[in-house]
Amino acid sequence: MVTLQDVQDAAKRIEGVAHRTPVLRSRTLDARVGAEVYLKAEHLQRIGAFKFRGAYNAIRRLTPEQLRRGIAAYSSGNHAQAVALSAAELGTTAVIVMPEDTPRSKLDAVAGYGAEIVTYDRYTGDREEIGNRLAAERGLALIPPYEHPDVIAGQGTAALELLEETGHLDALLVPVGGGGLIAGSAIAAKGSQPGIRVIGVEPEAGNDTFLSLAAGERVTVAVPRTIADGQAAPTPGELTFSINKELVDQIVLVSDEEIRDALRFAVDRLKQVMEPSGATGLAALLAGRLDPLPARIGVIISGGNVGAARLAELIA
Amino acid sequence: MVTLQDVQDAAKRIEGVAHRTPVLRSRTLDARVGAEVYLKAEHLQRIGAFKFRGAYNAIRRLTPEQLRRGIAAYSSGNHAQAVALSAAELGTTAVIVMPEDTPRSKLDAVAGYGAEIVTYDRYTGDREEIGNRLAAERGLALIPPYEHPDVIAGQGTAALELLEETGHLDALLVPVGGGGLIAGSAIAAKGSQPGIRVIGVEPEAGNDTFLSLAAGERVTVAVPRTIADGQAAPTPGELTFSINKELVDQIVLVSDEEIRDALRFAVDRLKQVMEPSGATGLAALLAGRLDPLPARIGVIISGGNVGAARLAELIA
Repeated sequence: MVTLQDVQDAAKRIEGVAHRTPVLRSRTLDARVGAEVYLKAEHLQRIGAFKFRGAYNAIRRLTPEQLRRGIAAYSSGNHAQAVALSAAELGTTAVIVMPEDTPRSKLDAVAGYGAEIVTYDRYTGDREEIGNRLAAERGLALIPPYEHPDVIAGQGTAALELLEETGHLDALLVPVGGGGLIAGSAIAAKGSQPGIRVIGVEPEAGNDTFLSLAAGERVTVAVPRTIADGQAAPTPGELTFSINKELVDQIVLVSDEEIRDALRFAVDRLKQVMEPSGATGLAALLAGRLDPLPARIGVIISGGNVGAARLAELIA
Repeated sequence: MVTLQDVQDAAKRIEGVAHRTPVLRSRTLDARVGAEVYLKAEHLQRIGAFKFRGAYNAIRRLTPEQLRRGIAAYSSGNHAQAVALSAAELGTTAVIVMPEDTPRSKLDAVAGYGAEIVTYDRYTGDREEIGNRLAAERGLALIPPYEHPDVIAGQGTAALELLEETGHLDALLVPVGGGGLIAGSAIAAKGSQPGIRVIGVEPEAGNDTFLSLAAGERVTVAVPRTIADGQAAPTPGELTFSINKELVDQIVLVSDEEIRDALRFAVDRLKQVMEPSGATGLAALLAGRLDPLPARIGVIISGGNVGAARLAELIA
């Protein structure tokens, strides 16, 4: 079980290390949506995504002996950088298992934080198995991307900060990938404002949590083909789903074209760069996916790691 | 003459109407430049650029009779939106003279604030003459884009806010177009921190202020061909140059390719969208144009109105 107290403890643990990201407002957005919208800008978090919160909280809770031995993680995305930077901040070492075709810029970012990178073939290898084996062989603490109470509690701190700043909200929109961000967000939100609606957003092609909530059990979909690469998990996590099936009120779906529209809106009107997964909450709002429309809506903008060349393709 | 007191008065006048824009920091940027860099985020100002400050301040100072009659202005860019919005905020009407080939989105934005648009052929018409004639015929108050003490004082409020927030800075980098922003910034900066270096940034092709300062008098260059369309003035303003020749320590030049690099850096690392003119200060820093390098540097990011499709071209 992860509780509001765990999220509050995590908030103290990350204070002064993670950024307290700003809450962005836009008159144009409010007018377009017809509601008051509060955007929690996790694309401005360290490493460019909320993932730093959970990774740092989890690593910070390890014993001195574990910190001495070091960390292992597997990720092709933001969790890799989050673990690498957290390890560096806490004076320990990290080994990150990453696909060998990971873009050079992401490999460089992880290496730049001093982490060791172990690559594998994503078509033939199993990253979890490689990560677990490395951890066992070298005595490393494995920090998974979402299936871990301390990671979930850390991710919940973004919603906690948002609600502290806004006061009462009627609804909170949160992108859903493996489910760690929304699980932590739901714990923070329902714990501090019981009446709030917690609404997850998935890309249409990666609707595994939508289907799982409808079925009442974890459902696996085909590996999603979507521009929202941070939400391409084919099945919810076991731990995250056990939380989300209790606390998440609804999942809404957005198409890749709606996500592109949100990226363009973010550029044109907000002057902000979001990655596709980071913009799904905004996309749901702009596409009118909320019915009835709440009056005061919080949205977690989960990340902004897209790269200039890729962004150019997406918004052209 | 425009004084620090005028800028301080302008700051009171725009308070609660203009945004007090954030000052952005980036560890990556500091490490890359080798200095502490403070970015004043005027791309997050209302209408997406600093221009709102000067236009609002100038219109706010008109008499009730002038406000009853209405405003005239000429601009193809951010000043048009700034005057249109300011007029709407102050309950008056505005007529804006704009080239007939202005992009639809900019015309729509100006019209959206309730302003009347008068178009002209930019190859055969003279916008100043049309603006002056309209103002005379209809009894309107003409608000020029930079040749006006109240406009200059208003533009200076961005630097004033920046320096209030940062305390001591060694240098302030400011984009130079017609010279209104840097004139106001220099008055605010030298007035509150006499030792500060005020450094202007121009695109290489639009180096009219650079040449004018070297010559000690206003020089006219060929109409600049540069992606920094907000800095395409071929000659400094008379009033602005009279201020800038006293207060500006230096002008540095950046190439279009260096501006593109800055736009990409802003997207990749800052997750911010800047327009080319808005990013020239950042471009100068990233290109290593400051020698010796000051330890604490403020930069005015002057605007972010670029449009998604155009940004895609610029950063591809």
